[in-house]
Amino acid sequence: MAKLTKREEDYAQWYVELVQRAELADYAPVRGCMVIRPHGYAIWENMQRALDGMFKATGHQNAYFPLFIPESFIKKEAEHVEGFAPHCAVVTHGGGKELEEPLYIRPTSETIIWAMYKQWIQSHRDLPLLINQWANVVRWEMRPRLFLRTCEFLWQEGHTAHATAAEAEEEALRMLEVYRRFAEDFMALPVIRGLKTDAEKFAGAVRTYCIEAMTQDKRAIQAGTSHNLGQNFAKAFDVTYQDDAGQRQHVWATSWGVSTRLVGALVMAHSDDQGLVLPPKLAPIHVVIVPIYKTDEERAVVLAFANGIRDALPKDLIVRLDDREQYKPGWKFNEWELKGVPLRIEVGPRDVAQGQVVFARRDTGEKRTVAADQAPAEVPETLAAIQKGLFDKALAFRQANTREVKTYAEFRERLEAEGGFFLADWGGTTEQELQIQEETKATIRCIPREGGDPQGPCFLTGGAAHARVILAKAY
Amino acid sequence: MAKLTKREEDYAQWYVELVQRAELADYAPVRGCMVIRPHGYAIWENMQRALDGMFKATGHQNAYFPLFIPESFIKKEAEHVEGFAPHCAVVTHGGGKELEEPLYIRPTSETIIWAMYKQWIQSHRDLPLLINQWANVVRWEMRPRLFLRTCEFLWQEGHTAHATAAEAEEEALRMLEVYRRFAEDFMALPVIRGLKTDAEKFAGAVRTYCIEAMTQDKRAIQAGTSHNLGQNFAKAFDVTYQDDAGQRQHVWATSWGVSTRLVGALVMAHSDDQGLVLPPKLAPIHVVIVPIYKTDEERAVVLAFANGIRDALPKDLIVRLDDREQYKPGWKFNEWELKGVPLRIEVGPRDVAQGQVVFARRDTGEKRTVAADQAPAEVPETLAAIQKGLFDKALAFRQANTREVKTYAEFRERLEAEGGFFLADWGGTTEQELQIQEETKATIRCIPREGGDPQGPCFLTGGAAHARVILAKAY
Repeated sequence: MAKLTKREEDYAQWYVELVQRAELADYAPVRGCMVIRPHGYAIWENMQRALDGMFKATGHQNAYFPLFIPESFIKKEAEHVEGFAPHCAVVTHGGGKELEEPLYIRPTSETIIWAMYKQWIQSHRDLPLLINQWANVVRWEMRPRLFLRTCEFLWQEGHTAHATAAEAEEEALRMLEVYRRFAEDFMALPVIRGLKTDAEKFAGAVRTYCIEAMTQDKRAIQAGTSHNLGQNFAKAFDVTYQDDAGQRQHVWATSWGVSTRLVGALVMAHSDDQGLVLPPKLAPIHVVIVPIYKTDEERAVVLAFANGIRDALPKDLIVRLDDREQYKPGWKFNEWELKGVPLRIEVGPRDVAQGQVVFARRDTGEKRTVAADQAPAEVPETLAAIQKGLFDKALAFRQANTREVKTYAEFRERLEAEGGFFLADWGGTTEQELQIQEETKATIRCIPREGGDPQGPCFLTGGAAHARVILAKAY
Repeated sequence: MAKLTKREEDYAQWYVELVQRAELADYAPVRGCMVIRPHGYAIWENMQRALDGMFKATGHQNAYFPLFIPESFIKKEAEHVEGFAPHCAVVTHGGGKELEEPLYIRPTSETIIWAMYKQWIQSHRDLPLLINQWANVVRWEMRPRLFLRTCEFLWQEGHTAHATAAEAEEEALRMLEVYRRFAEDFMALPVIRGLKTDAEKFAGAVRTYCIEAMTQDKRAIQAGTSHNLGQNFAKAFDVTYQDDAGQRQHVWATSWGVSTRLVGALVMAHSDDQGLVLPPKLAPIHVVIVPIYKTDEERAVVLAFANGIRDALPKDLIVRLDDREQYKPGWKFNEWELKGVPLRIEVGPRDVAQGQVVFARRDTGEKRTVAADQAPAEVPETLAAIQKGLFDKALAFRQANTREVKTYAEFRERLEAEGGFFLADWGGTTEQELQIQEETKATIRCIPREGGDPQGPCFLTGGAAHARVILAKAY
């Protein structure tokens, strides 16, 4: 098997090779689209299961709205149409005829959903309305990259309606916290929760919150967003409820989403030059058992022992015994390392004789001998240690690569020399923010919620600062 | 609450009112499309969970392929393009520009999937390839009907590749049997497994198998199809493998699917003039507990008792204690009957005093008193009895409404007078089959697998018969 390009040689090339060689996804023969292969889709299914449980635990229900959005709907919210319409795919023909009104393929579903909320919301008893949708969406992309940026992607989009502004803000922050917990507890990915600046917020939102993670090449990757939409969509679609005083009031809204982009973020966070490194909580296979033998006699003994080990492991684990005859153990080691199985158990004739097995951790490469009868207890412990180890390592890496800067000159110099996240005091305008992007390719990722107040003047202008921000180059 | 139209007055109207009033789905403000509301989507999620488990247990993995199919791909298989292209929605613009090649929204994914299989299949080691996709598809519909026939619908589509014709046939029949088991064990819907005639088979298939169920107005409803595609798509996309003798061979294929149409079939199978009747294995809520009280004092006692009942029920059941203050018990009874909760438990002050509750079955309306401490054991038993009762009733109904006919005159007379399924010996041509449809609106639903050999001459022509078929009017 040819080796992967190394991360330090060409990180972008390493990523795209890895995604394809590990059989997570392929480019499709349709411009800008991808095919998610079974190994990649299984990771997405694990993500869906965890997130869906968290959504339901916070009172949300799933529903499904149409793929098609009439052009007139997209145009109802002014900022929204400006932000999304230029990136849409448009259906002009159906059933062999030209349509009277073009249908946009949903780039996000606020408009079609709020057209229905208009019908469903009459009284305060209909609120809050807490709905989530798992769906595909389409946004035309000029420079597609597997998982990170494709014309079509899979996602979930929550859309909620509330009686008060305070409830909508609370909901937007609640779901941001759900995303943080998911990223940190399942993906082993430490994230910074923050508020987007006006230049970066969702088209149609009052406030956009986000979680931002750091990749191994020290860039930022946005891993989820939660929007307080204020009354923008309620007003565009005239969605009102009757309050206690008998007055009609426009409702307040949120929307929030994460996508298959998370699979890309997961790969970028932990994987190495040998292949995928997956956190056990999202890995499609937890343990692979590789039998090692030379003779037929050894084969019978080793396989019987390996089967016994497999059968004794906890039933909630996905365990694969790789007894394929046509491949040598070393080949199998490489394949399962490429595919990111967190724990490999090796069993050879000497292990059988001594009643032991060998544990090989994918994350650290550490190998150790474990008594066979201890394996059922030690496997879950080892998987938990891997899950924690990945998070700790990623957090330490982010902390080591986050720096405070006081001046624009210092920022530009260190951004080029070292990369990473830069914490700075900020008092500039949207124009000045775009100027930074123009000059450095870095953007203000967010105003972190735990960032505290400014401690000095604006790093760009030297004038008064109104926020502490994180800047970085981003995917 | 206004009453539903009765089934015997207008079955079609009853159906569409029920689907909307029970909040399963609504027509969307996009021509021919529907919105699946949370109560309907929860049924679909339960269907998905059961089916997905059965697919995985038979060795299939999930993946995801693009929504868009280039026009040139759709045109590669001659029958396929003829059957599907006229019913497609077509994207002509993307990212603000006219596309060089129009993109069809998938009406089914054979062509885009086989373009990928061309890349993935090289050797016999790559076979069988057993992939399933959960996705939305679009087929332009002139006369949409909620769940049964909508422009966009949700489904799963399995697509498999095999080394031999025999393996493909075996797979097509295996998945047909999975569908039968799902329909009968989960939906409580007895089905007939059979083979479609050439007139009714999938565009591009060699053989199409189906399961057909009977609705309460004695029509047929196709509930799933499984196709043996032979080498048609392998040849269209030139997908070959190297056999043991070193020769390149085209592979053999199947595809199979069920859709959100199953929700419509479920409604039609069991529901009544009061509302939905759902089999417990697919019901979003298994049990509703309704407290009955007049005074505040009674309220405290009854609610404490009802909470105790709820907490004692098995944890795998979804139980809702309806303690809403603003509604009376009778109103709640009606609402939960409309929504199809299989079992209602009523608790009043007299029940508390006597340590008992009242069970009310949604399917039969039967009410009986159960000792409170027996409820945890009796609830699962009652739910199992409901599941079985629904199946038995539907089976008896189908059997009572399936008739043998010997002549076309007899068929036409009894079809008009009684409706139902008609078993007949058949030796006609495709043209004669279309003539029957023209004259009677009925079609040959299938050649049932358990139908046996013809016992006499063709019921239409009096000539030699080659099969026993089922005829019926269908949804």
